[in-house]
Formats: sequence, C-alpha cells, structure tokens
Amino acid sequence: MRARPMIALLTDFGMSDPYVGSMKGVISAIAPGTPIVDLSHEVLPQNITQGGYFLWSCYKYFPAGTIFVCIVDPGVGTGRRVLCVEGAGYRFLGPDNGLMQLVVDSLARSSIFTVENRRYFRKEISPTFHGRDIFAPVAAHLSRGVPAASLGSRTKSFAPGERLVQISERRKRLYQGSILHIDRFGNLISNFLAKGRLPSNLLLHLGRRAIHQTFRTYGEAREKTPFLVAGSSGLIEISIRNGNAARSLHARIGQAITLKT
Amino acid sequence: MRARPMIALLTDFGMSDPYVGSMKGVISAIAPGTPIVDLSHEVLPQNITQGGYFLWSCYKYFPAGTIFVCIVDPGVGTGRRVLCVEGAGYRFLGPDNGLMQLVVDSLARSSIFTVENRRYFRKEISPTFHGRDIFAPVAAHLSRGVPAASLGSRTKSFAPGERLVQISERRKRLYQGSILHIDRFGNLISNFLAKGRLPSNLLLHLGRRAIHQTFRTYGEAREKTPFLVAGSSGLIEISIRNGNAARSLHARIGQAITLKT
Amino acid sequence: MRARPMIALLTDFGMSDPYVGSMKGVISAIAPGTPIVDLSHEVLPQNITQGGYFLWSCYKYFPAGTIFVCIVDPGVGTGRRVLCVEGAGYRFLGPDNGLMQLVVDSLARSSIFTVENRRYFRKEISPTFHGRDIFAPVAAHLSRGVPAASLGSRTKSFAPGERLVQISERRKRLYQGSILHIDRFGNLISNFLAKGRLPSNLLLHLGRRAIHQTFRTYGEAREKTPFLVAGSSGLIEISIRNGNAARSLHARIGQAITLKT
Repeated sequence: MRARPMIALLTDFGMSDPYVGSMKGVISAIAPGTPIVDLSHEVLPQNITQGGYFLWSCYKYFPAGTIFVCIVDPGVGTGRRVLCVEGAGYRFLGPDNGLMQLVVDSLARSSIFTVENRRYFRKEISPTFHGRDIFAPVAAHLSRGVPAASLGSRTKSFAPGERLVQISERRKRLYQGSILHIDRFGNLISNFLAKGRLPSNLLLHLGRRAIHQTFRTYGEAREKTPFLVAGSSGLIEISIRNGNAARSLHARIGQAITLKT
Repeated sequence: MRARPMIALLTDFGMSDPYVGSMKGVISAIAPGTPIVDLSHEVLPQNITQGGYFLWSCYKYFPAGTIFVCIVDPGVGTGRRVLCVEGAGYRFLGPDNGLMQLVVDSLARSSIFTVENRRYFRKEISPTFHGRDIFAPVAAHLSRGVPAASLGSRTKSFAPGERLVQISERRKRLYQGSILHIDRFGNLISNFLAKGRLPSNLLLHLGRRAIHQTFRTYGEAREKTPFLVAGSSGLIEISIRNGNAARSLHARIGQAITLKT
Repeated sequence: MRARPMIALLTDFGMSDPYVGSMKGVISAIAPGTPIVDLSHEVLPQNITQGGYFLWSCYKYFPAGTIFVCIVDPGVGTGRRVLCVEGAGYRFLGPDNGLMQLVVDSLARSSIFTVENRRYFRKEISPTFHGRDIFAPVAAHLSRGVPAASLGSRTKSFAPGERLVQISERRKRLYQGSILHIDRFGNLISNFLAKGRLPSNLLLHLGRRAIHQTFRTYGEAREKTPFLVAGSSGLIEISIRNGNAARSLHARIGQAITLKT
C-alpha cells in the first residue's frame, strides 16, 4: 500500500479564526492519515498576486503527488469557478481568479478541470466558506485516489493573473513589470526572472526612484542605498542592507516597475 | 492495527513562545506517530469566550476519535479542575472555566471526568505550565488507548460558560445575546443561532446602533452600512462590505447585544 | 521497519513568506512520510539569543531521534560554518553562531560535526537561502538514516553564545546575567537558573530598577509591582501581575541584569 499523497494548504484565512481548523477536520474525516502541511495562512487578505507568487515559489520542491489547496478568493459565493490544475504529477485546487497563472505558466504541460461534481462536496455548502465545503473535501477525495477528471469537465480558458517577465542579457530592452511580494524584511520581490547571475548594467525604476546597483548577497551591499539582488527563486529583488526597502521606497504589492537592460 | 487518534491543539499561547513546541515534544515522546494538528494558538490571551467559540465551530468536522486539547486557562496554578469531556466519539481536555460549555451543549450525550490521576501527568508539575505537564501527557495517553474513565471520577457539575441562543422565526420576541468572536476581517460573530435562511424582519442592537438589513452573502450588501448575515456556522454575523464592522461599531468580544424578531 | 525520526523546525522566517513552505517541500521530497513539526517560525529576525533560548527550552521534551533544524542565521551566504550537534540521541542542525550553545551546555556528552558534504545538499545553492538548499535536505537525509559523521569532519570549537548562570542558594554572591526572551505576556525570562524553589532574599537589578519580591505563582503577586518567579523551565522570570513587565520596565532581549543572593 502506498502512502496517501500529502495535502498542502495555502490561504489568506489567518490563524486567529477557526477556518483552517475546520478544513483540517474535513480532510481528516474523509482521508484519515493524510499528512496535512501548512504552507501559510498569512497571505494578505484577498491579495491574489501575493498568493500566486507564494504558491509558485514553493510547489516545485514538494514530491510528485502533492495536492495543493490554494484559497485567496474574494469572489467566494459568486459565480466564479473552482479549478483543478494537473501537471508534473501535482494537483492544484483554487478559485478561477488568476491565482494559479504562475503555476500553469511554469508547467511544461497541464490539464485544467472545472470542479463541479457535487458528489465530492459537503452536502450543505455555505455561500461564504467554500474552503470547508468544497476545497477541503475535494482535496481529500483526490488524496484517496479520485482522478482530477472525475471532478468536472476539462477547460482551456481561465482567468488570467500576474505573469513573470524573463530578462534576457543579450540585448538592450525596456521591460514592464510589477512587485509580487514584500517579504518579512521589507525586500521587494519583482516578477523579473533572471537566469543565473544578474547582469551588471540594470536600471530599475520604481515610482520616481532609479536603482542600478547589483550585488550577489545582501552582505556585499552598502547600507541605506537600495540595490538589486537575485532572490532565491531567481526573481530580481530590491533590498536595502540592514534596512526596509518597502518602507524607504513606499512600495506596495502590485506596483508597476520598469527595468532597462 | 488501527492508526492512533489524532490530537488537535487549541491554545492562547501564540507561536512566539516555546510553549506549544514543548507540548508537541511531550506528546510525541509518549505517543510516537500520533498526528498533531494545530487548530490555532492565536486565541486572544485568556479570552475564554473566543476560545470556546473556536472549539465549537471546528470540532464537529474532525473524525470520531479525535482528542482536543483546549487551553485558555487564566486560573492555571490555582485550584481550578481539569476536565475531560467525552461525547460523539470525541474527547476534549480543558480547564473547568466554561471553555467547553458550547461543546457540551452541542453533544446529544456526554460524560465528564475530572482529570486527577497523576499517573498520566509528568512527574514534576510546573504551577504555571499545565499544558506541558498535565494536558499534553494526558492527551498522549488517551491517544494510546487509556479510557477517559481512568483519568478520574465522573462529575456532573462544571463551571458555566457562554451559550448559544436559538432564534425562532415563528414568534416575535426579544433575545439577549453577546459577541463571541471578531474575525480577521472585522466581522462580529454573535451567539444567535439561526437555522437556515435569516428571517428578514430582524432588528439587532449593539450599543446605540440598530442594524436591520439582512443579506445572504457579503457581495449583495451595500458598502458602509452594517448588515446581518448567517455565517458559515449558522451564527448571525454583523458585517460591513469592504469595511471593518468591529472598528466602525467599536465592538468587543463579550459585548452584550439584543435581537428583536 | 521503524518509523522515521521526526524533524522539528525552528526559524526566524515568519509565515508570511514562502521560505518555510519550501523547506517542508524539500524534506518531504527526500524523506516522504517524515513527520515535520513546527516549533516556531516567529523568532525575532536574527535574534540568536532568543532562538537559542527557544531551542533549549523545547528540545528535551521530544523523543530521542528527533532532528532539530534551527535557523537564525544573519551570516547566511558568508563563510560561517553549518554544524550538526549530536547528543542524547538528538541531532541539531544550525549555523555556527552561538545558537546552539545552551543545548551543547545542557548535554552531558556531545559530538559536533561540520556540515560540508555537498552530496547531501541540493545541487544549486542560493547564497541567501541555505534553509532550503542545505539545512532541509541534510535533515531529510539524517532522517533517512545517514549518520552525522557522514556530513563532515568532527570539530571541537564553535562560536560561543549566551549561557545560563546557575544560582546557588548557599552563599551570598553577585551574578551577572541577561534577558533571554520576552514572552507574549511581557514576562522577562532571564538566564539565571534556579533549581527548585526561589530563595526569598534575591535582589535583581535591571537598569536602575531593583526587584526583590518573589512569588511561586503569578496569582499570588500584587498588581503593578514587578516580582520574580521561577518559570516553567527553571529560569528566573520578571513579571507584573495583569501587566506587561517588558513595557513597564523598558526591557529588551539581551539586556544586562544582575542578581544578588
């Protein structure tokens, strides 16, 4: 007997409300023994951009088979669809609001199913808490072996979300991008993806500020001056050594930026 | 061999202190392999009302057999008793301070035992940390198969706590209630339980404010005006669309409210 | 077949960034089925003193075999070593910055290895995220049975950290100490270790404040006046009943204190 695939939870529910606890109960009741892992429940409320970044930067480290439940869902209770993305051996459940765009982009091949087979839902469905009544039971059934194709019909279209911008070193160009995330230390994570070392001739604009210094680690930079560094996921970050770049630069998630190579 | 029942933890310890970690260690040492689930450790410090609501709204989704450790315990180190409530296949460990009132009320039948058999405690008991020295080891022993009746003598009486108020649509009446919880979004969760759809003729008073609009989902309401909605646990909530009802209405957990039907 | 040893995580990463999630993925991919326990991810950023206290006060309750991953690592990406401490059946992975001093002091015997065998690292190593690329995979391999001695060469020296000061009741003396931690309630945890009951003749100085009252539990003290109490780990704490000692006394972690017996 193979072990049950694990279920990883990513939500904006926080831990001061009973929502996550209820979901864990529903999963355990349907699929006893399934390991449940908290990715985070501290996504900023209703911040789809941050949630999508979070999922993208974690998922690829998990073993094939893992089922991701991703809930940043301002449209809960409206007509928005619930989707199941399948690819690279993973399954991703989430609302159809762009949250899974980065994941879909990163998968060489994927199939997307609408989640509509009420057989795998709880019998009564609260209009405000699909996490407990739809996402959790569907994830548990997937973990027990239900194939994604049983959840509903296949679909090609889905609501678009934030995308990554691949930076090429070879030719001079101006790229349009945005801030995906601000981390605990105030570092700004952009959607500019740089393979390998950062080119040294970059010029990033954030509002009226121009940033051009690049370093390989935080420790090499001087204090107070914002600089660019390749983060641990390959995205260009804006940082201030021993400082808080987000506060100093008055930046916010979703803000537009440009990069000249 | 059956899998060990899981242990679910609910405390007001927060995660910036080593208390929860120590409890997990004690449980794992006595009952290796027992799955430990965090319901939350973010109950407001010493807020029994909120803790009791939290437990009540989660527990019923867990599989039978689950052991709940519930610690919101301002009386730790005094003479207050520790109780084990057994019902519907669950076991609940908590201090005798009203924390488990809602759970007991919701169980068709329950037995309550005082937890006093020191055989299942740690040998040395800190007067300030019963979570590690009493609750955790007792839960671990329950998980290993020790019956609740071995923990101590049966009791009928226990300290009372907040209770739910069942609203009947059929006749006009004035109900006295209170705020059980304020969620991450500032929604106020009352102790008024409404089966099914909310009646349309409600009038709720909170301090000097009167609230009478009712909606089925947050999305149907207008902005800025507080309204009533049936929450995902069947309790009436006071909400402001795209706003923070708790802040706008200066509400606090435990505050008295009235409802006219 | 024996169950895999569990892996306990202690970091200053917080839960609003994808760092912890990525580590859990790496561990699960290498050692499927290994139980992962969160001790905390809320250590104050880069606060080695607090992290070391946290680890020390938790670890001894875990079952032998447990692997602790401890990351409070301001020197990540510089030349600082990574160490594996082995003792009492436990393994501790952490940076060589004093974080594990209290643990080493508390072990009757221990062996320390430098973690340098790249065979157990991820292939590409981000200079800013050793948690994912070194600590997580090494812990997973330990859990699968790799012996600590395979990680690198044995070492005797390591960077020193905060230490405990054992208080003796028998003779009058002046002790130099410091604040290790401030808990959720504002209690100050010192590094003065008192076996058993607190002597009644203590005089503690914190800045210009002198504190001499001692009580056995919080409940016995009067409000507003700071007092001393033996905490649940045997360390002397400074507390104010129904108050916040840290705020009232303007204390901070690492602050020097003295104790006269």
